[in-house]
Amino acid sequence: MIQAYPDAIQIASVVREQEVSAKSIVAAALSRIADGNQRLNCFTTVMADSALADAEAIDRQIAEGKDPGILAGVPIAVKDLLDIAGITTLAGSKINAAKPPATCDATAVARLRQAGAVLVGATNMDEYAYGFVTENSHYGATHNPHDFNRVAGGSSGGSAAAVAAGLVAISLGSDTNGSIRVPAAFCGIFGLKPTYGRLSRAGSALFAGSFDHIGPFARSVRDLAAVFDVLQGADPADPVCTTRPPERCLPQLNLGIENLRIAVADDYFARGAEPEALEAVAKVASALGVKDRVTIPEAERARAAAFVITASEGANLHLKDLRSRPNDFDPATRDRFLAGALIPASWYIQAQRFRQWYRDRVREIFENVDIILAPATPCIAPPIGQEKMVIAGEEMLVRPNLGRFTQPLSFIGLPIISVPIQREGNMPLGVQIIAAPYNEALVLRVAAFLEAQGIVSAPVIQR
Amino acid sequence: MIQAYPDAIQIASVVREQEVSAKSIVAAALSRIADGNQRLNCFTTVMADSALADAEAIDRQIAEGKDPGILAGVPIAVKDLLDIAGITTLAGSKINAAKPPATCDATAVARLRQAGAVLVGATNMDEYAYGFVTENSHYGATHNPHDFNRVAGGSSGGSAAAVAAGLVAISLGSDTNGSIRVPAAFCGIFGLKPTYGRLSRAGSALFAGSFDHIGPFARSVRDLAAVFDVLQGADPADPVCTTRPPERCLPQLNLGIENLRIAVADDYFARGAEPEALEAVAKVASALGVKDRVTIPEAERARAAAFVITASEGANLHLKDLRSRPNDFDPATRDRFLAGALIPASWYIQAQRFRQWYRDRVREIFENVDIILAPATPCIAPPIGQEKMVIAGEEMLVRPNLGRFTQPLSFIGLPIISVPIQREGNMPLGVQIIAAPYNEALVLRVAAFLEAQGIVSAPVIQR
Repeated sequence: MIQAYPDAIQIASVVREQEVSAKSIVAAALSRIADGNQRLNCFTTVMADSALADAEAIDRQIAEGKDPGILAGVPIAVKDLLDIAGITTLAGSKINAAKPPATCDATAVARLRQAGAVLVGATNMDEYAYGFVTENSHYGATHNPHDFNRVAGGSSGGSAAAVAAGLVAISLGSDTNGSIRVPAAFCGIFGLKPTYGRLSRAGSALFAGSFDHIGPFARSVRDLAAVFDVLQGADPADPVCTTRPPERCLPQLNLGIENLRIAVADDYFARGAEPEALEAVAKVASALGVKDRVTIPEAERARAAAFVITASEGANLHLKDLRSRPNDFDPATRDRFLAGALIPASWYIQAQRFRQWYRDRVREIFENVDIILAPATPCIAPPIGQEKMVIAGEEMLVRPNLGRFTQPLSFIGLPIISVPIQREGNMPLGVQIIAAPYNEALVLRVAAFLEAQGIVSAPVIQR
Repeated sequence: MIQAYPDAIQIASVVREQEVSAKSIVAAALSRIADGNQRLNCFTTVMADSALADAEAIDRQIAEGKDPGILAGVPIAVKDLLDIAGITTLAGSKINAAKPPATCDATAVARLRQAGAVLVGATNMDEYAYGFVTENSHYGATHNPHDFNRVAGGSSGGSAAAVAAGLVAISLGSDTNGSIRVPAAFCGIFGLKPTYGRLSRAGSALFAGSFDHIGPFARSVRDLAAVFDVLQGADPADPVCTTRPPERCLPQLNLGIENLRIAVADDYFARGAEPEALEAVAKVASALGVKDRVTIPEAERARAAAFVITASEGANLHLKDLRSRPNDFDPATRDRFLAGALIPASWYIQAQRFRQWYRDRVREIFENVDIILAPATPCIAPPIGQEKMVIAGEEMLVRPNLGRFTQPLSFIGLPIISVPIQREGNMPLGVQIIAAPYNEALVLRVAAFLEAQGIVSAPVIQR
């Protein structure tokens, strides 16, 4: 097995110090991918030649005394809905395969490359990001590195599995209803869904525009913070992207958690989960010395409203293809898009009106609390191909219910990290660290504290 | 006939100087209403007792040496969708008649009263503001003071007719697709539809929340400016209301039009109108020395998108009543609400996406031009009860087509005054003076210039 460095910051450090060349780092990553991807199926495109050339360019810069950036030589991958110049953006779709290659990088991809990261490929996902399992009928299922028979989670399953298996140090995903947090939890790594609008989505294929976010996966909190810092900043190409000045979170990681008001979400977030998911939250709460509880009202309705808006906005984007070539869709997404196309405008408007009310209520809660804890998923990663599952004694469909705890929160754009709980001999689980909008620095600090205490961690899974 | 003072500023001036008491001004207005409303049917409620009491209070303030405000003793009326404490807000609906009285004034009503205005009543409108004619099946049609056989326009027809006939000096209306500008044009008075979100709508019945505006009718530009100045300012009760500080427009009226870049809207706005409507625009353009033309792209699509959003948002607000008691609606609005309830969410989302594109295009136009001129309506006020009309040789339905030139502009929230062109022996017409968002001061300056030149005016119609 070829060695995987623990995290991106360390890779960049040894590369900059010329202890190891970027080229050999990237070559090793490509070798791990060639080996690991056969079982994991997390890549839809591997860019071996351009990655090696990019790595050589980094090495030249260093030899010339230049600083290639905080991510110098770090192998990264991005979900196949972010544009990569010269590559056709698939977004998990067969229809897109016939489209021309993207002419330029998505803003997020360009910013990571400018910071020295070396892009090695694009990763598998649910078609059009509509799913929690990454069981794609066109490009196959992505397997969980902890147990190849289980799903990696979705829709950013390829990105999560690639980081968990150490094929790359960092990856990007997108999260509309939980598509970063669910696979981060199932694969046992860190995943950050930032505040809605804080990171540019320019050059990414939209799913449901009013709550699509992009964000990073990583194996350490400092990597997560470094990538978030690189990605921040206004972008004229993205009208939704906030123009507020970037806030450097990496230097704030060791400020500790003193004086933070932290509470565990009760009611909806303490029901409908397997005991182990709630135990994971209790473990984190205990490590943080948290005893307070907080009730987020109407989370069930928030989830219902998120379903309505997702299906409506998603269907609108694909209406033409749904009419003219429905059989070219993944059956799992097609049927939901078709249902979405039939939703009355009145439901959509009602859901958006409720959203405003709900956002105001949750904003009020954050006047008295800084951080809220909740499970990321109701259970561990289910087996691939399994349609139903039993949660807290109740049988239900797998696909729509994995996002039970993530949907009501992305619905109003809160910044959230899913932190990984490793469970010896068992599948990992995730806990959501949740804050008010624009408080990424806070959730990163709490995650860093838990990491320093050894409560959460994301070791490379080598099997 | 009881004398009607030319405008509100003059009334307030003589009241403050104690030349005439507020009570006698208000008593005269009530007398004119008792007389004129029999033929015009512009009031749904007249508040004689409270108006006289309010006027006495103004007179007492003056006797005590206090300043009762810029609108001291001015009789005003408001569209019956703005809450008046102690009165049931009808919004033109029979269903609402059974509801309890409002417990407090709408913000706009309260601000006018604080400025010394005396509220004498609530005015007739199309049911739920859905119409351009004020032919209300429950409360009757409002008649045009220029020709009792013709409509006053709508949906704020009662407010416009009351000002045009001199029953009050000032009134408030609301404009979603043209409901201030169309009746202002048909009744030959000034009407201001401000920038979306600039004036608080708190305490008003919504029609289509994403483009409802409230605004004043007046017989002089200075009255319009004075009322706009009084109504401005953030309002915690209205989440849509902008928090930008008020800008006093009244003192800016005589800054003139030098250096203003003014152009006439061509293409869509120069077609589909009777010749006289385009002649009115040409007359205004000539007085302003304007030769430039400007093309607002895709105005036809903007109108279509405005129809979709109006019907969808409107239907959502009334869904419960539409299901349980459809026969209690005005048939003219019910059928459109029912159609709106069936619109797919995908259409609504598409319309909202187009709206963003279109707003950006129009914003670009305003980089090179300050003011745009366009007709307010395609024709003069049609006869009451007439279902079809011929515009530019084409037969079409009256009701949906009167807003042809207003809809594509309110759709993106631009500030607009409809200025009145009096036509000896003919019905009046209106011209829209249009600016970029938050440039109310500019449209008021242009209107004041035209008024000073004698091109536009709003004399009291006494018949």
